[in-house]
Amino acid sequence: MSNFSKQVLTVGEMASGVSLTIPVYRLTGSGEGPSVYIQANIHGAEVQGNAVIYQLLELLQKSNLNGNITLVPYANPVGCNHKNGEYTLGRFDPITGVNWNRMYHFDETLIEQVINKHSDSDIDTIKTEFKQLMLNDIDNKLDHNNYGLTTGRRIAYRLQQMALQHDIVLDLHTGPISSKHLYCAEYAQQSASYFNIEHTILIPNDFAGALDEATFCPWWTLTEKFAELGRELNFGKESFTVELGSQELINLDEALIDAQSILSYLQHKDVINGSDYQPAEMTRYACYLKDYKVYYSPMGGMVDYLGEFGQILKQGEPLARILRMDNYGDGDALHYLTLDEDVIPVLHFASASVNQGTELYKVFTNYFTL
Amino acid sequence: MSNFSKQVLTVGEMASGVSLTIPVYRLTGSGEGPSVYIQANIHGAEVQGNAVIYQLLELLQKSNLNGNITLVPYANPVGCNHKNGEYTLGRFDPITGVNWNRMYHFDETLIEQVINKHSDSDIDTIKTEFKQLMLNDIDNKLDHNNYGLTTGRRIAYRLQQMALQHDIVLDLHTGPISSKHLYCAEYAQQSASYFNIEHTILIPNDFAGALDEATFCPWWTLTEKFAELGRELNFGKESFTVELGSQELINLDEALIDAQSILSYLQHKDVINGSDYQPAEMTRYACYLKDYKVYYSPMGGMVDYLGEFGQILKQGEPLARILRMDNYGDGDALHYLTLDEDVIPVLHFASASVNQGTELYKVFTNYFTL
Amino acid sequence: MSNFSKQVLTVGEMASGVSLTIPVYRLTGSGEGPSVYIQANIHGAEVQGNAVIYQLLELLQKSNLNGNITLVPYANPVGCNHKNGEYTLGRFDPITGVNWNRMYHFDETLIEQVINKHSDSDIDTIKTEFKQLMLNDIDNKLDHNNYGLTTGRRIAYRLQQMALQHDIVLDLHTGPISSKHLYCAEYAQQSASYFNIEHTILIPNDFAGALDEATFCPWWTLTEKFAELGRELNFGKESFTVELGSQELINLDEALIDAQSILSYLQHKDVINGSDYQPAEMTRYACYLKDYKVYYSPMGGMVDYLGEFGQILKQGEPLARILRMDNYGDGDALHYLTLDEDVIPVLHFASASVNQGTELYKVFTNYFTL
Amino acid sequence: MSNFSKQVLTVGEMASGVSLTIPVYRLTGSGEGPSVYIQANIHGAEVQGNAVIYQLLELLQKSNLNGNITLVPYANPVGCNHKNGEYTLGRFDPITGVNWNRMYHFDETLIEQVINKHSDSDIDTIKTEFKQLMLNDIDNKLDHNNYGLTTGRRIAYRLQQMALQHDIVLDLHTGPISSKHLYCAEYAQQSASYFNIEHTILIPNDFAGALDEATFCPWWTLTEKFAELGRELNFGKESFTVELGSQELINLDEALIDAQSILSYLQHKDVINGSDYQPAEMTRYACYLKDYKVYYSPMGGMVDYLGEFGQILKQGEPLARILRMDNYGDGDALHYLTLDEDVIPVLHFASASVNQGTELYKVFTNYFTL
Repeated sequence: MSNFSKQVLTVGEMASGVSLTIPVYRLTGSGEGPSVYIQANIHGAEVQGNAVIYQLLELLQKSNLNGNITLVPYANPVGCNHKNGEYTLGRFDPITGVNWNRMYHFDETLIEQVINKHSDSDIDTIKTEFKQLMLNDIDNKLDHNNYGLTTGRRIAYRLQQMALQHDIVLDLHTGPISSKHLYCAEYAQQSASYFNIEHTILIPNDFAGALDEATFCPWWTLTEKFAELGRELNFGKESFTVELGSQELINLDEALIDAQSILSYLQHKDVINGSDYQPAEMTRYACYLKDYKVYYSPMGGMVDYLGEFGQILKQGEPLARILRMDNYGDGDALHYLTLDEDVIPVLHFASASVNQGTELYKVFTNYFTL
Repeated sequence: MSNFSKQVLTVGEMASGVSLTIPVYRLTGSGEGPSVYIQANIHGAEVQGNAVIYQLLELLQKSNLNGNITLVPYANPVGCNHKNGEYTLGRFDPITGVNWNRMYHFDETLIEQVINKHSDSDIDTIKTEFKQLMLNDIDNKLDHNNYGLTTGRRIAYRLQQMALQHDIVLDLHTGPISSKHLYCAEYAQQSASYFNIEHTILIPNDFAGALDEATFCPWWTLTEKFAELGRELNFGKESFTVELGSQELINLDEALIDAQSILSYLQHKDVINGSDYQPAEMTRYACYLKDYKVYYSPMGGMVDYLGEFGQILKQGEPLARILRMDNYGDGDALHYLTLDEDVIPVLHFASASVNQGTELYKVFTNYFTL
Repeated sequence: MSNFSKQVLTVGEMASGVSLTIPVYRLTGSGEGPSVYIQANIHGAEVQGNAVIYQLLELLQKSNLNGNITLVPYANPVGCNHKNGEYTLGRFDPITGVNWNRMYHFDETLIEQVINKHSDSDIDTIKTEFKQLMLNDIDNKLDHNNYGLTTGRRIAYRLQQMALQHDIVLDLHTGPISSKHLYCAEYAQQSASYFNIEHTILIPNDFAGALDEATFCPWWTLTEKFAELGRELNFGKESFTVELGSQELINLDEALIDAQSILSYLQHKDVINGSDYQPAEMTRYACYLKDYKVYYSPMGGMVDYLGEFGQILKQGEPLARILRMDNYGDGDALHYLTLDEDVIPVLHFASASVNQGTELYKVFTNYFTL
Repeated sequence: MSNFSKQVLTVGEMASGVSLTIPVYRLTGSGEGPSVYIQANIHGAEVQGNAVIYQLLELLQKSNLNGNITLVPYANPVGCNHKNGEYTLGRFDPITGVNWNRMYHFDETLIEQVINKHSDSDIDTIKTEFKQLMLNDIDNKLDHNNYGLTTGRRIAYRLQQMALQHDIVLDLHTGPISSKHLYCAEYAQQSASYFNIEHTILIPNDFAGALDEATFCPWWTLTEKFAELGRELNFGKESFTVELGSQELINLDEALIDAQSILSYLQHKDVINGSDYQPAEMTRYACYLKDYKVYYSPMGGMVDYLGEFGQILKQGEPLARILRMDNYGDGDALHYLTLDEDVIPVLHFASASVNQGTELYKVFTNYFTL
């Protein structure tokens, strides 16, 4: 590929001095379409996104690109290499407990600066200026800070420096044991139907440190502030967290299917030319984030997970049964767990052994079709 | 002790069905002084508080109590028993990463309810009603919740149910490798001098989920709201996080000294009678929370910690030196780390091996004497 | 069940004082058949055996028992409750690294004592005396030892005290991600066909600390020593490690099938009466332990496991492919791994992320049908 | 230093493709003295040896070398970088549980080959041939092995390839919380007095996989076999495990003292010229390995370690006291642990929180002065 380049980004150092690096792949388009940033594996065990990036790179070689595309596998080399026992423990910094996907930055006071200075500027100027303000803010935190920065923020900020340069941001994740699902900002709901993903969670404009939010919250808020001033601006920014299924798995065949699903969305957004990639026909369920419920185990024990992903589980039907052999003979050895409303199970915990209070299932309630 | 009682609280269950329990000790006073709640070991590796509670129980047998005192060692049996390798990994829930001391609850909207209903009530009524509102709120979350509760919240809420019943709350912690220090609400600054602790961090009225905040923030906010209405009320509530030194250590002799320090404060507050316990003469340094700085390692490597706790480290003097043997012969094998201002080191990281971005030291800046 | 009893065995204590206990279930038979000991979950993540014991207890209520049966789920409460992150880390003592299933005891010098004293005794006397010698040996280690015992040996010895009382011992395990397989002493090969398990590993008379070996090695060695003296004795002792599939899973329906498979073997051994349980028709493959090969990853990377369990993988066909996105664009991003001989894959590693040298697959070589 | 060279050895790869490397420093002597191999940090948390190698490199620049010296810090980059929580978990492979210092290799059948072929050869030929046999054996395992090698063996064999080239081998370790001590082969007892180390454990000729054993066992066994044939040969091989104190600590000042202690031994062996380094006057205690006892905790609880390192603890005096707050009020909250004989405590466990059966102390019994 003549329009292909590769860069290696250093984002950390371990105790022995080993440098932690991230490979960055860039494909150059004609410049006539929106630009795209795709990253994978910010959580250590969520590796399938790397395989999807592999397949995307293979497919994009044969595509006609309007927009530039940046692809970043292995986004978090600390998490990615953090084995404990057989498994990878990369959901949060092992020292601080902070989720690796809650360390991106957005300072809402920047909005005011833009509004004050550019209330009458044209949209391109506003885009350029706001982006630059956010980049400067992050550069300051990265490089002008006498007391330094946590391991995770250093990584997150380096990634965010790249993400901020693009119009569309896809952050590839997986659940523990999980069906595919999509986190989508409420305002971008119509885009969800271009992914071949059955479950969409619609999220409001609240910044909690994740990459998707760090991308759409600033622009969404800016849009709303301008709307209050009577200007309707569309900055063309979209951002999704794409959950590809279960963690701790690499499946290159499935990755090809997911790459095609992403290309269906990118074709819709005119990032690539042509009509090769069409969304599949499927029933797409959605619910609002407030209705995406976590069910915590009411007891310790060993779980036989019964609720099937993507199937409506009627009120009162068993979601799971918990084995408590210590109770055999003088108590209940089997406990059936049910819910008071119809739900769609989307993912469950990765292990059969749970403490009281472990996050057992995540389910859609008050779901509807897109 | 005739006024002594013991209770065992069940707060969780593990996969094998083992119940996790917390012992609760209660000493009954004459009722003429404030009541006190003291807990230890919410973070698994911070065990010295249990030894302090042991010594407190021994000393209080010989004391004359005005107020009731509740003492709770082993407050978090999950964290306390969570070994990995040789060490105890109990700073946060190993599954979610959430700090065990960030799961207490305060719903600020309750303030409004009290103000609306009791703007003219007498102080005792206000105290009783506000306490009851907070207790009901927690009971609801514990027991009327179809989707359940995380392991950590279940524990925190059970502890908070007890803490809310008392006037004074002491949460016994330790740092990683650490000098003694005290977290003290700004409004209670004068009480800090009754503890034999050289370093005090003065904290503002921000609720972030810790037990001390969960105790003083509601009453502080209520006080301020009444002040806005022109009523100056003193609810007599105080709460401290007492940091006893380093984690992973039990020292019963040192625990006796710390128990005496706590009794010096409790005697000052009229919880116990007499004049047996007097604060030691010492220089007590303080700084505001915003000036209590974390210094993150600018590089990976192995650390020789040089900054001594409690000693003023002049600007430019080495806080630590980092060994990087991989650089020997063709780079700098030793790196000296310095700061741009005078500081007092209070604690440092527990291990010599650090990644870039590990929290190396916590230091007082802009410190002053109490 | 009138012939049913339950006991709770205390085998350890944790830092907070929590007692670790094991439930023990006993079914009493007519005494006319061999006695059986079945245990599960000595490795913390290998939980499915508990579900099999549940189903065995349910089925055995309706059976006619000749021999006594002892069933022990949750055999290792330390391992069983040892979570780290989402997963259970119970393959070895987290402090010492010693595999929980390598701590049983056999002192070969006891054989000589029996031979010297009982070379002419009848077989029942020999059985009784040898068993008693081994029990005394373990009692000594458990209870007359000034310097104490490791956590794991204490548990193992308590279990072994029970196992030694029985004729047949089944230790229920699982692999990481695995097909069902059976470890069977070479001399008991003909019994393997009564289990509904496709893969059998035939093991020689070498004691390495596992429970199955701790059961059959002493009697096998004794049999051989008597054979050297010209006496052919059959002590009727058999012992198997039954691998039920993958770890971290509870499946009660599959457990019922496995319980029936075990009952098919027990019916064959006259432990239960009747003809309800017959072995299934299936091709059963076997290989000798020396031919049960571990394939270690030749590189670090992320693995797409291709070799299917129970299917013959021809020489040169891909066992796995390893993704190395860091090499994309300037190296090989995909590496196919093959072997120089025909094999049958039996299990593979639990995670897609591997270091160079991680145990990737275990395979049968030089396999044959039983 | 003109005689100084540095090499970087690649010993592994992690999931993200990061190469794990070890720096190797070589100082060339005149060739008139024995050669020396010094390595540190095979156990991840035992970092102080790296600081000692730093100080050795600094001091050796000013020394006159007879023998070549190879120095290898960070010998195990997997262990060295394996953090979990705040601490480094590098005592054993986190996946297999195998101790990183039990993976070296020695095939005793090589002895027979040497004896058969070289019973009448001169000592230099025997040395060369035996060394070559061992090197070939390891090369075969590293490079001609279709099924691969574990992560740990790959590292160990690469290190052993270097160690085998030298006459003297020092493996720098630390205990958990520990005084300095020395593991010394019984035949080399007189050398122990040249180190400034108060405690020496004398070990027999048993190979259990450690580096010191992998060095002296082959030559010791060969010496004995030749002695049986009537030839008394001294191959001049010595090997020690030097325990430098506590893990998780870097102290460059203390490292200088330890470097001087090592140079005192090396000067005695004529590796360096001069008389700069003399052993300190001190009482050096020793005991045989069989008398170096581990004391396991008889109960779970929290430990106040009382036995002081290097001080004789008389029979019946308290070694430790265990706090069990759960027993306060209705049982014994404090338990004193004593032994039935006089001992010298040498190290204790790294944490105050212990399970029943945790290795609490290691002590000398039947000790004597060197």
